[in-house]
Amino acid sequence: MAVAAGKAAIAIHGGAGAIPRAELGDEGYRRAREGLRQALLAGWRVLSAGGLALDAVEAAVRALEDDPMFNAGHGAVFNAGGEHELDAAIMDGRTLAAGAVAGVRTIRNPVSAARRIMEASDCVLLAGSGADAFAREQGLETVAQDYFSTDLRRRYLERAKLAEAGKLERPASEAEKHGTVGAVAVDALGNLAAATSTGGYTNKRVGRVGDSPVIGAGTYAANGACAVSGTGRGEYFIRHTTARDIAARMQFAGMGLAEAAHAAIFTDLAAHDCGAGLIAVGPDGTVAMPFNTPGMYRGAITTDGVLCVGVYGDDFSVVETLG
Amino acid sequence: MAVAAGKAAIAIHGGAGAIPRAELGDEGYRRAREGLRQALLAGWRVLSAGGLALDAVEAAVRALEDDPMFNAGHGAVFNAGGEHELDAAIMDGRTLAAGAVAGVRTIRNPVSAARRIMEASDCVLLAGSGADAFAREQGLETVAQDYFSTDLRRRYLERAKLAEAGKLERPASEAEKHGTVGAVAVDALGNLAAATSTGGYTNKRVGRVGDSPVIGAGTYAANGACAVSGTGRGEYFIRHTTARDIAARMQFAGMGLAEAAHAAIFTDLAAHDCGAGLIAVGPDGTVAMPFNTPGMYRGAITTDGVLCVGVYGDDFSVVETLG
Repeated sequence: MAVAAGKAAIAIHGGAGAIPRAELGDEGYRRAREGLRQALLAGWRVLSAGGLALDAVEAAVRALEDDPMFNAGHGAVFNAGGEHELDAAIMDGRTLAAGAVAGVRTIRNPVSAARRIMEASDCVLLAGSGADAFAREQGLETVAQDYFSTDLRRRYLERAKLAEAGKLERPASEAEKHGTVGAVAVDALGNLAAATSTGGYTNKRVGRVGDSPVIGAGTYAANGACAVSGTGRGEYFIRHTTARDIAARMQFAGMGLAEAAHAAIFTDLAAHDCGAGLIAVGPDGTVAMPFNTPGMYRGAITTDGVLCVGVYGDDFSVVETLG
Repeated sequence: MAVAAGKAAIAIHGGAGAIPRAELGDEGYRRAREGLRQALLAGWRVLSAGGLALDAVEAAVRALEDDPMFNAGHGAVFNAGGEHELDAAIMDGRTLAAGAVAGVRTIRNPVSAARRIMEASDCVLLAGSGADAFAREQGLETVAQDYFSTDLRRRYLERAKLAEAGKLERPASEAEKHGTVGAVAVDALGNLAAATSTGGYTNKRVGRVGDSPVIGAGTYAANGACAVSGTGRGEYFIRHTTARDIAARMQFAGMGLAEAAHAAIFTDLAAHDCGAGLIAVGPDGTVAMPFNTPGMYRGAITTDGVLCVGVYGDDFSVVETLG
């Protein structure tokens, strides 16, 4: 695989608040890292061929949506009604064009529906059955609800219902409650893009929409500034316009990417008891991945082709060097 | 009515892109100005009694939702399916708490449902039938779809369908296509709040969500900076995080309210062929009301109790002085 000219780079996340080591186990840990690696490679194939950041983030997020390890697409959590309602967004930093879906129930890859909305409609955000209908009209792959279901997520819902009834002894972990996937990339021409996709959080109220499809909250990209995808308690990302604020601090206050990304998690969101993380990339390929939880499923391929992944705070490590 | 201590002020809009004078007529013009006046007074009653900005913007927007002159609540436009799907949001600048509904169909006053979400749920944004169900659970007033319908909006839908089929000779005006209502206020303690409510635009795709319920796009408030409510082609407000950017320019770049509000409409949105306007208020009661259309239904009560309303670019005038 040829390394892209210029400063192409990609970063992904599979949600802040990783499953505790004891619960994840060696096999789960290996599978999580491999899933992250495969999603990175899906994006990198685009970038290393000189493709667009926009195509790279869609490819990476599709891979994460298809992987049942992560809370998006296949493997999404259940809502309070025992069903799946999925949110996703994509944003093109070249033009600030964006597309998003909220509360969709039959679209296999919500991120691709978001992209189609961006490119084939006058809308940015479509919700509910209208969004599902749009995807069908456009010929995107649709599936039955049980395509998204896994036994693990069903157990999480059962535990959440027990917790609600005051019958759960061990509290649910952050990972058990929510999760999200996302990707940010810069291509060889310096274009930025971001995409995010999620099932929300276990036992969420029917109709609840999180930050992922809210442009400026969980997803944002602007050429010359940064691309951002967030994960955590989405309501706080919405209230703090977290993803946009990172770019705004760079554009209006001259702050650097790392400092702006850090401030979003450790200043803005610090007032709330809220597990949170994000990934961000700048035009020069700089990557930031702040999180305040014990772990965040994450990975990056840096401008020199080094592929790294990590699950916990202390295990972010080089897997291979592409070249 | 006593004038509030401190710097209380309120501004409202009933949508950018006013109906052309010839079409509105003298009686319509008088009714529009009176509707704006009544909504201002509804908010001012709260502020002048020492109440919260949050309560004032809710009261003003409820009045505009109930007035069939404006595209929100009773009098909302029809979507492509011949139905009404309503969006609304409210934000409390004290805490950045926010609530919003998208695509609701049975809630008489969507702004009050948004507030209830903010105060009685863990969510910020609820969409579709889940949001309608929440409102019912909470005992908010629900109505049948035809409560929202008016003959004027039905004619607009018929004309939009003709236009789609290439059978319309005179193009639809901005006012005919969309519209929104909103309010921003500062109370005697300097607290800011914003609220927005809309039926979207005539013949919109089923499921389309605009900027009104997107925190940072069509609605935003942060104490110490400003409160903003937007009106116009919402997709551009979402892409430009317009309402948040006004506050961000003030907080991160030290810009004044008037300059930041002007930049949002005449710099950020200027690249798009997009009718747009907004209202904004700062902690000292300064009000800005930029718009790029021939008219914007708007009004304000300034810190000295002067009540002004206007419909077109040249008719913003004092109606009375409260004291």
